[in-house]
Amino acid sequence: MPFDPESLVFNDQGLIPAIAQEAETGEVLMMAWMNAEAVARTLQEGRVVYWSRSRQAFWRKGDTSGHVQTLVEMRVDCDRDCLLLQVRQTGAACHTGRRNCFYTALRDGEEVEIAGPM
Amino acid sequence: MPFDPESLVFNDQGLIPAIAQEAETGEVLMMAWMNAEAVARTLQEGRVVYWSRSRQAFWRKGDTSGHVQTLVEMRVDCDRDCLLLQVRQTGAACHTGRRNCFYTALRDGEEVEIAGPM
Repeated sequence: MPFDPESLVFNDQGLIPAIAQEAETGEVLMMAWMNAEAVARTLQEGRVVYWSRSRQAFWRKGDTSGHVQTLVEMRVDCDRDCLLLQVRQTGAACHTGRRNCFYTALRDGEEVEIAGPM
Repeated sequence: MPFDPESLVFNDQGLIPAIAQEAETGEVLMMAWMNAEAVARTLQEGRVVYWSRSRQAFWRKGDTSGHVQTLVEMRVDCDRDCLLLQVRQTGAACHTGRRNCFYTALRDGEEVEIAGPM
C-alpha cells in the first residue's frame, strides 16, 4: 500500500525515534527523532532529515558538518513507532567526531571508551 | 568510572530507549524502553529486561515466549539518552514471530514486507 508518514505512531510531541545504521557494515551509528514532515523530506530527498528537539527545527544531517547521511532504505517496525534507516554515512555520525555515538561500553561495572574521534 | 544507571538521561516517564542488536551479525532486532531498574537488572542478570509501557511492568524478554536476549555488552550514547544492547537472540525478537521487528521497507513509495515469520 502507498506509504503515508501520518500513518506512523508518534509520541505526544509528534516524534518517532529513528535508528541510523550503516547499510554496508551493520554498524549502528546514532538514534535521533523525526516528525512526519522529516520522514517525508528524508524519503523525498534521499538524505536524512531529523527533527532537533533542542533546537526545535529540522536538522538536515550534514548541512553544517558535511557529515551527510544518504538514505539507502527506510524501514518501519511492527508497532509503527520506530524507524530503522539504512544509510551511507559520510565521515563521523557523532558530534564528538566519532564514527558512531555508542562509544561508551559498560564492562565489569565501569564505563570504558571503546572508540576515539576519527 | 563506576557506572550508575541513574546517571543516564531518562525522558519525563523515566524511560530511555534501548536498541537491541544481534552481536554476531549486526542485525538490528528491535527497540524498546528501560527505566533505571531495568538497566540495573539487565546488567546484573546478563539477560535483557525492558519496561513495558503498555503493561507498566518489567518485561524480562523471553519469560513467556522463550525468546530470551542474552546480553553481550551494553553501550551508552554520547548524550546518555539512548542505549545499544549487543545481544544473542534466541528465536524471534519480534512478537509477530519474525527474527526482527523492522520487516516493512519503504520502496518506491510503497510498504513492502521483506521478512516473514521464522
